[in-house]
This record gives sequence, structure tokens and C-alpha cells, in this order.
Amino acid sequence: MARVSQEHLDARRRQILDGARRCFTSNGFHATSMQDVLREAGLSAGAVYRYFRSKEEIVAAVAAETLESVRVSYAATAAADPPPTPDELIGAVLSRLRVLLGDTDGDDQRALPQLLMQVWGETLRNPEVARVLADGYHGLLGQWIALVEAYQSRGWVDPGADAEHVARTLIATVQGYFVQQALFGGMDPAGFREGLRALVAMNVPEEERRPAREH
Amino acid sequence: MARVSQEHLDARRRQILDGARRCFTSNGFHATSMQDVLREAGLSAGAVYRYFRSKEEIVAAVAAETLESVRVSYAATAAADPPPTPDELIGAVLSRLRVLLGDTDGDDQRALPQLLMQVWGETLRNPEVARVLADGYHGLLGQWIALVEAYQSRGWVDPGADAEHVARTLIATVQGYFVQQALFGGMDPAGFREGLRALVAMNVPEEERRPAREH
Repeated sequence: MARVSQEHLDARRRQILDGARRCFTSNGFHATSMQDVLREAGLSAGAVYRYFRSKEEIVAAVAAETLESVRVSYAATAAADPPPTPDELIGAVLSRLRVLLGDTDGDDQRALPQLLMQVWGETLRNPEVARVLADGYHGLLGQWIALVEAYQSRGWVDPGADAEHVARTLIATVQGYFVQQALFGGMDPAGFREGLRALVAMNVPEEERRPAREH
Repeated sequence: MARVSQEHLDARRRQILDGARRCFTSNGFHATSMQDVLREAGLSAGAVYRYFRSKEEIVAAVAAETLESVRVSYAATAAADPPPTPDELIGAVLSRLRVLLGDTDGDDQRALPQLLMQVWGETLRNPEVARVLADGYHGLLGQWIALVEAYQSRGWVDPGADAEHVARTLIATVQGYFVQQALFGGMDPAGFREGLRALVAMNVPEEERRPAREH
């Protein structure tokens, strides 16, 4: 009995989150009401409020779930030996994320990045969403730092560089991927991977560098 | 007479934009009203509405001005021979931008990146802001593509790589810098430059790479 009941609860919660995700990606977070979520999930108000008290709680749950997918996808790829290069890892995670979440996205694939941008904006006024995002960020930062240290121990990255700074720069590339896709379109995982690969394979002979200057 | 009059108009416009910028960075774009801008600029409603019909027009003007600063700063640094490496260029532009705009920012330097994030969000519903940002983006993209092509002609970047993909990846790092600073803080131009430098100096011996796979 208890087991069936838990399954039922989980299925209901799933139904709400899937409905909410469809609403959010179609119309954006701000233009979606709790009524829209109810309708899309095919549930009564009572059923939804039993699980989530507000739209803010739902968006926090959607964000947490998405970040968990990213974390799992990242961990699965990063665990390989030798470790994946940044372009391999980021390309693989973006591709998988696109398959995982992109179905609702129609042709232009901008709805999800736009939703992500709205969620970022929401952190400025919603502490629960801010907490979920900060947790996800710090988890990913730790994973990236470990990977950069693995690169350093193999001599792939200058061992004198601060691994956290390198990790933050790598995370920045992914965030910027979503910003560009949300605002202007034209990004795709394969092209991004190519750009990233050329970047990490960049080679500036020491004698051609400009003299070091302080800025 | 005409000359004085134009100077007067320009000074007035400057006064409005400076006031608006202070309001936006202190309280965010959404929480700022036209009344706040009037008060901060020390002007009457009539004086302000002569220049800008709405808050949206003001934020578009502030965004255009900021993008123009970035463009000028970028162009000045990128024109050097030999060309600056990505870490030199991005580090220099971020530092200059921080000096240029950071004064109102207090200690934590997150207000401006947060405003930028609000402006990005605004593009989804405000065509004028979207147009200003798209113009700025495509201008910068063109500048970056030219620089990547200069790298390629020197053999610093694989000549077989698509310069536009590399350029988009480089722009992504800067956008991600602002996202991280807005959401979580802890970013600074010097650290970012160090991370970027280690990344573009990364060196993975061919024989240590994992076999190429399609994702």
C-alpha cells in the first residue's frame, strides 16, 4: 500500500512538473499562471497545491531537476580515463541536455535558454530559486575544479594556474552559450564544440606574444 | 546660438542617462520608475519626456551607450600588432569597463552584471532593446571574427576551424563572466584572465586524447 501510494505521489508530482515545464517553455515563466499549470497538467487546484504552494516553488523544483540532469550527465562523461577535454565534455553535456529537454522546443531551440534566463532573473527576487541555483552552481564548480586538477596532474593545464579560476572560465562558456542562444539564436552544440576545441588548442609562440603589461 | 543649444541638449540628455544609470544599478530596471529617474536627474517630467518617451527608451539608450563603450575599448585593444591574445583582450576590456561603469557599484560589483541580466531579459518583450542588443552583438561578433582570422593567419588558431564558431565561444566566456558575477559573485577580471590564459594555453598531447567519438 505505502509503496503504491508513494508511486502515486511521485507520478502526480511528475505530471505537475512536466506540465509546468511545457507552460514555462511555451510562454515564459512570468506569463505562466498557476491556472495554466493546472490546465496543462490536467489536475485540480487542490491536487497541485498539495505538492507546491506557488509558481515560485514549482520553478525552483524544475530548476533543481534540470540542474540534477546536468550534474549526472556531467559526472558520467567526466569520469572517463583519460578525462574528456573541455570541448568533449561540454559538447556531450549540451547535446544530451538538448535531447533531454529540447523536445518541447520546436524548431528554433531558443525557448529553453530563454526560460533559463528568466530563472536567472528570478534569483534576484526569489530566495528559494537563488538557493537552488547556488547549490547547483557550487556543485558543478567543485566537479570542474576536480577535472582541472586532473588536467594539471597530466600536464595538460599549467599546474601554476588557479584551478578554480580555470573552472569558472569553463562554466562561463556554457552560460554564455545559453545567453547567446536565448538572445540571438544561431548556437548549436556541434559548432560550439568546434569553437571550444580550437580555443583550447590555441598556440601562441612565446616570442610572438606582446610584452606582458599590467592592465 | 545653435551650438550652445546643442551643447545644452547633450548635457541634458547626459544628465538623464546618468541619473537613470544610477537608479537602474541601485534598484534594478524593473523597480525603477520614470519618477525615480526624474528625481535622481533633478529634472522635471517635461524636461525628461522631451528626450525619452518611456523607461524602455531610456534603458535602450543606456544599453546602446554601454555597448558603444565596449566596442571602442575592444577596438583600441584589438588593433595592436601582434594582436592581443583572448585573455589579454578580454581582461583589458573587463578591467576598463569596470573602471568606466563600476563607480556606482559599491564593494560587491554585482549591481552592474545584475542590471545587464535584467536588460537581457527585457529583450524578450521590448523590441527596441532587442534591436540595440542585436546590433551590438553582431558588431562585436564581426570584430571577434576578424581577430580570430588574424590568429589563424599567424597559425595561433587552427586555420581549419570556423572563425565564427571560435568567435562565438569567445563572446560566450564574457557573457558567462557577467552571469556568474550577477548570480553568485566572486568573479574579478584578473582571475578570469588567469583562467582564460590557462585555457587557451592548454596542451593535450594527441596520443593522450580519447578516441574521437560522435555525440
